[in-house]
Amino acid sequence: MTLSDEVRIALDGKWRHVREKSRVELAEMNLAYDLDLDLDAARERTFAQLKELVPTGVPASGFRTENGGGGDPGMAVTGIEMLAQFDLSLMVKAGVQWGLFGGAVENLGTAKHHALIPQIINLDLVGCFAMTETGHGSDVQSLETTATYDPSTEEFVIESPTRSSRKDYIGNAAKHASVAAVFAQLITRGESHGVHCFLVPIRDEHGEDLPGVITSDDGHKGGLGGVDNGRLEFHDVRIPRENLLNKYGQVDEGGAYSSPIENVNRRFFTMLGTLIRGRISVGGSASASAEVALSIAGRYALKRRQFGPTPEQEVLLADYRMHQRRLLPLIARSYAYRFAQNQLVARMHRLQTTDDPDPQMARELESRAAGLKAAQTWHASRAIQDSREMCGGAGYLAENRLTTLRGDVDVFTTFEGDNHVLFQLVAKELLTAYASEVGGLDPVGMVKFVAGTVTDTVRERTAASQLIQRLIDARPGRSDDDHDLLDRGTQLSLFEDREEHVLETAARRLQRAAKADPDEAFRIFNNAQDHVIRAGKVHVDRIVLEAFTAGIARCDDEEAADLLREVCTLYALVTIEDDLAWFMGHNRLSDQRAKTVTTLVNEQLEKLRPHLLTLVEGFGVPESTLGAEILLDQD
Amino acid sequence: MTLSDEVRIALDGKWRHVREKSRVELAEMNLAYDLDLDLDAARERTFAQLKELVPTGVPASGFRTENGGGGDPGMAVTGIEMLAQFDLSLMVKAGVQWGLFGGAVENLGTAKHHALIPQIINLDLVGCFAMTETGHGSDVQSLETTATYDPSTEEFVIESPTRSSRKDYIGNAAKHASVAAVFAQLITRGESHGVHCFLVPIRDEHGEDLPGVITSDDGHKGGLGGVDNGRLEFHDVRIPRENLLNKYGQVDEGGAYSSPIENVNRRFFTMLGTLIRGRISVGGSASASAEVALSIAGRYALKRRQFGPTPEQEVLLADYRMHQRRLLPLIARSYAYRFAQNQLVARMHRLQTTDDPDPQMARELESRAAGLKAAQTWHASRAIQDSREMCGGAGYLAENRLTTLRGDVDVFTTFEGDNHVLFQLVAKELLTAYASEVGGLDPVGMVKFVAGTVTDTVRERTAASQLIQRLIDARPGRSDDDHDLLDRGTQLSLFEDREEHVLETAARRLQRAAKADPDEAFRIFNNAQDHVIRAGKVHVDRIVLEAFTAGIARCDDEEAADLLREVCTLYALVTIEDDLAWFMGHNRLSDQRAKTVTTLVNEQLEKLRPHLLTLVEGFGVPESTLGAEILLDQD
Repeated sequence: MTLSDEVRIALDGKWRHVREKSRVELAEMNLAYDLDLDLDAARERTFAQLKELVPTGVPASGFRTENGGGGDPGMAVTGIEMLAQFDLSLMVKAGVQWGLFGGAVENLGTAKHHALIPQIINLDLVGCFAMTETGHGSDVQSLETTATYDPSTEEFVIESPTRSSRKDYIGNAAKHASVAAVFAQLITRGESHGVHCFLVPIRDEHGEDLPGVITSDDGHKGGLGGVDNGRLEFHDVRIPRENLLNKYGQVDEGGAYSSPIENVNRRFFTMLGTLIRGRISVGGSASASAEVALSIAGRYALKRRQFGPTPEQEVLLADYRMHQRRLLPLIARSYAYRFAQNQLVARMHRLQTTDDPDPQMARELESRAAGLKAAQTWHASRAIQDSREMCGGAGYLAENRLTTLRGDVDVFTTFEGDNHVLFQLVAKELLTAYASEVGGLDPVGMVKFVAGTVTDTVRERTAASQLIQRLIDARPGRSDDDHDLLDRGTQLSLFEDREEHVLETAARRLQRAAKADPDEAFRIFNNAQDHVIRAGKVHVDRIVLEAFTAGIARCDDEEAADLLREVCTLYALVTIEDDLAWFMGHNRLSDQRAKTVTTLVNEQLEKLRPHLLTLVEGFGVPESTLGAEILLDQD
Repeated sequence: MTLSDEVRIALDGKWRHVREKSRVELAEMNLAYDLDLDLDAARERTFAQLKELVPTGVPASGFRTENGGGGDPGMAVTGIEMLAQFDLSLMVKAGVQWGLFGGAVENLGTAKHHALIPQIINLDLVGCFAMTETGHGSDVQSLETTATYDPSTEEFVIESPTRSSRKDYIGNAAKHASVAAVFAQLITRGESHGVHCFLVPIRDEHGEDLPGVITSDDGHKGGLGGVDNGRLEFHDVRIPRENLLNKYGQVDEGGAYSSPIENVNRRFFTMLGTLIRGRISVGGSASASAEVALSIAGRYALKRRQFGPTPEQEVLLADYRMHQRRLLPLIARSYAYRFAQNQLVARMHRLQTTDDPDPQMARELESRAAGLKAAQTWHASRAIQDSREMCGGAGYLAENRLTTLRGDVDVFTTFEGDNHVLFQLVAKELLTAYASEVGGLDPVGMVKFVAGTVTDTVRERTAASQLIQRLIDARPGRSDDDHDLLDRGTQLSLFEDREEHVLETAARRLQRAAKADPDEAFRIFNNAQDHVIRAGKVHVDRIVLEAFTAGIARCDDEEAADLLREVCTLYALVTIEDDLAWFMGHNRLSDQRAKTVTTLVNEQLEKLRPHLLTLVEGFGVPESTLGAEILLDQD
């Protein structure tokens, strides 16, 4: 077993068997995206690939055994993530069908709906997940589509009242879906009960729009050419009462509404919470695509030479300090996110395979999934972009795959929640310590809610944290040697302390809104918005460092663990370096100590340079499946 | 005249008449990129558009009147930049034909070659600019292609000796060019005289490869689908002696080499220097495309609402603090770069229309063009990407143009010089104060050279700068009120002081290489590489702030000038905020004062928010030519 193998095993985590199987199976399927195909042909090809996936067992794994599934949520997410190593169009299309559409049917529906799941698994029933509207993306509680109950026929009438209420950007909607899981305001007896999900047939067996349904095509996009994103409009579309996915809300024949969850906000967020796997898959897949890009750029840096001490002695790109500065911190961050992702998937799996899941744990998981998704998708966009630039002009040629990855992953920062909104959500949960009362996502609801609950929460946090005081005491005047920046404990303390401080100060700003009118409350929220979002970000930095540390602790091979520790140190140092002004300005690092950070980073780059190939191989993307011509050239 | 008009006039600069004419003419040409076309059709369409440009006079403007041109270099660059507002494929194709290929013939050739220029202008002769090789991009002095003189036939023999010596990524090479301007090592009488440029016919009248020439296609790219980038290989290709573009180097019938410039480095960089317009056009066009993207995102932010104090009272994106934080600093930076670009173009025009140009001025101009190109192209990539994200899912649809812009502009950070290499070049020039001796771009040549010349230079610089001392004195202990961060003088001093300090410390590190052997010299250079590149970057920050200030001074309208001053302040503040740790760590800003920077930025955002539409309109991209469906929607 080589060191690369040991590192890969550590990174592969608990579902290594799924990864190993996928590496072999998917490599045989010829999944590389073909830019010569036009839109229609590309979509048909991806759809055909989707069918090839059915026998692998990954599609079934996400569903419960009693519904005909494999009962292995961890496998489902890992399997989807592995698709991202090959083609993101296929990953998205699989995620839409089995994760979002299938997930809605299983998690929001009841027994009568679950009967559909075998057909969903084997693609006899192809659906789409119609949540987002042209005018409402992040603010899903304000969706405009209505589902009005008509007791005379025992039907719901689905209606798109405005142009902005069109369902938009919906994967599978332009072509392949015959049914849509439509999120709409449920209205019965003249009263709205908030957003619920309905199964709405949209196409007949010839692919023609059903009466009252208008489907249209979003056309070309920045990438994901194999995914048929489209729009849906509904005009007086009638569906049977049974098509309401009624686990969390029911309407009886006469039109009486009932729900096991009284509070409308809590009901809505409980529904959304059951769909958490989508967000986890998006984050994980973005990370996987970053790993592919860094594998290409890393291998190219070990192959391409430029300039040098003498013309005969050209130097490898990987040996240039600036190139190391560009490449290695991105690799370190990818390692960090992979460990965090593995931990997240394991927790999700535990929660979703428990009979009586702890609601507090569920909330924490949702918040963590939101924050990681934001961090991972931005990282992926950046890592792929920088990888492209690190390969120069060659990086711009589609034959080297980076531009396709870049175009495909771009929208990941937007879908399953805009990243800024997600960090804001993370901050809100932290500020309220997951209070049992759930506020909405609208700023005023949020700020009023936070203002009402925050005081005790922050006080408890402050009291609980023993580490803070130690660090706050370490202001100039005390010796800097008190904390060694290479010590993991010091790094963790710095991250934790920063998080506490940013949260606490954000809370203090928001508290002023407690007694304000809505306009004033909005103003207070808005003035602090960048501060609040920052609280979400620094929280994620902290949990990622913790997850990295925990992941290394599980690595049995001593040599691999040593190397991973060095990678973790680089992640910690560059994260501190990125926010150095804060650590200095808040007396967590003296000016003198702060100046050493860049030197320490550079020393870490030198330490890791000899292991570059090992680190790249550790990602576990076989060279043969990277799909970059540049690595095949024999100069 | 509205305020927007006045702002636009200020931004339009000296070649406003060209811009105004282009806005009208190009809008009538239906130039929007069509993603439904396959590669071949897209290239033919762009080529047809190129022909439409001939009558506008822009193609002719870049050539000297005695050669049949318009003699207006400023117009040529401005006209190319305007194309970028419509389609970057067309801009690149125009730049390749008239700027690079035509520019090489005019600037490196002599009278016999100049006779070709009328055919180049009217596209009877289509060429390509074959400099980059698969194995040599930034390091053009190490090109492997050879041109060996054979006195027996009075011919040069062009040869691609290795796979890495293929000419690669060459625009027009895959299809449309019949002639290539090939850069190759000139060898005569067994001696190499460095890189020279040769006119090599590559295709016959039927578009077939000429004997010994192998053309091939780079295929799909991350964007620029209308440009036929390709590869060229030469095997025993014979061209007449006259095909050497012989202004800077000549071989007589018998094979004797002569040149007006003795030093081989200086000769090479003099040749490159004559091609400066390419770099200026790339930077300016990148800026233009950023302006288009920000015009789309800015207008969308004034249209799209989300959340709000009450559901009936949704708030415009433009009113969210976080959205302002994302949008307005990018707009401010775009303003800054436009003023810097206008200044650069004016200086280039002056230099290129003078009979006896000052070589010192030429060198400064080259360095400035390199630095601005790097800054502008990275800014464009980021601004377009952020604009895409600011438009959410809609931003990802090709119908809203942002993804096409993003894909097209991506390679601008790489071509006409990798941005890191360009900043390194800027730093080198600063460190040597444009010493008359020109070193190569290889690290060891550079570091030895710098080490040999740097001492006096740095000493002079240090003595010359009166401002530094004032600022260094303003260390903690002195009142912070000594410098008001909103004061332009303070900002300029901070930028200048930072530049001096970074340069001086870089110089001190490099000086150690003076007596080192090549390996050790390389090590010294390499350890300081990130520091050196940073010196180039902070220099550009400073010259851009100066150019912005100078541009405002030329604005006659008082109200417009007031607004521009506020925009300039935002640019200065966010630039300081980006590097806050440096200003703190080097005692240029106390911790207390540093903490106010973010508050000042936020106050500046509030001040500028009411002027958002004016600022967008100031870019001078008419709404009708933005080509974004999203702005046409009537909700």
